Amino acid sequence: MGGHKGFVLWFTGMSGAGKSTLSERLAIGFKARGYQVELLDGDEVRTHLSKGLTFSREDRDTNVRRIGWVARLLARNGVIAITAAISPFAEIRDEVRSDVTGDSTAFIEVYASAPLDALVERDVKGLYKKALAGEIASFTGVSDPYEAPSKPEITVFTSVDSVEVSERQIIDYLVAEGLIDGGSEIA
Amino acid sequence: MGGHKGFVLWFTGMSGAGKSTLSERLAIGFKARGYQVELLDGDEVRTHLSKGLTFSREDRDTNVRRIGWVARLLARNGVIAITAAISPFAEIRDEVRSDVTGDSTAFIEVYASAPLDALVERDVKGLYKKALAGEIASFTGVSDPYEAPSKPEITVFTSVDSVEVSERQIIDYLVAEGLIDGGSEIA
Repeated sequence: MGGHKGFVLWFTGMSGAGKSTLSERLAIGFKARGYQVELLDGDEVRTHLSKGLTFSREDRDTNVRRIGWVARLLARNGVIAITAAISPFAEIRDEVRSDVTGDSTAFIEVYASAPLDALVERDVKGLYKKALAGEIASFTGVSDPYEAPSKPEITVFTSVDSVEVSERQIIDYLVAEGLIDGGSEIA
Repeated sequence: MGGHKGFVLWFTGMSGAGKSTLSERLAIGFKARGYQVELLDGDEVRTHLSKGLTFSREDRDTNVRRIGWVARLLARNGVIAITAAISPFAEIRDEVRSDVTGDSTAFIEVYASAPLDALVERDVKGLYKKALAGEIASFTGVSDPYEAPSKPEITVFTSVDSVEVSERQIIDYLVAEGLIDGGSEIA
């Protein structure tokens, strides 16, 4: 318990690119190692932070900023804060990065990269089909922009590599940076 | 750093009853002792969590729930989370208490008690004067209800006791409950 340094592990990428899968696996692994971990993703964030927000640009930015603020508070107090929101706009991600690093806390941006073709083909939740048919307004990558990071700390190629390979890549980076211990297996 | 157990120190009370003053002093003292501490109060909360919310009952509840959720995440990861919102409604405070204690985290409700007369007389920010003149809608204790807690862990009588006495009372309680060390002076 406690005693380790916190950091923000910030996933970004389009719907279906593997952010949630990877972040959940990592959170479980970190917890098993005794780290303090919070995963800010999905229903909890929607219920507690985002309720009432729309898909307007302003509201989407507000949502990402709020997640960033909570991640920042956690990380500067020794918690590994993992976020898995699409967070499509570079400007807002960079704003959060600036706030986090301003506390002398590490901000690790993980770009879950996969070509739209691959995401449309896989379409696990059937959302791309609907978006391409015009049934979902403001769908990132289809009817709304996604701005890929220009200098992410890590890029995982989730349409090419297995989940295990991408997870290992992230862990290796964190160990190399001294953010987690490399002593034992995590995955 | 870290290694200690987190808890939520939840102030409630009317405007001007001393929540912010006490919570700021305590936060400074805890930090000086090496504890991980976050104070959720004032501008930061308004900017990062509450922007766009009105003073309707529903929005006020949403605000308090959000503060509660962030405090909960912090406290279950070993942080002393101090909140200083008026949080006028018992039902919402109890909901937060239930969520926090559901994580096996201590929730310490501190009621900053002061009679309305005393608050109106002191009126540091001039808000009661305006509220009584009808210039502020939905002002807690004047035109909006304040529900005092029926079983707070601590009640501080801030119109009678000095800040130092109230602060000492809270610290003594926390030491007695084993939530902080009693070894050295904090205030």
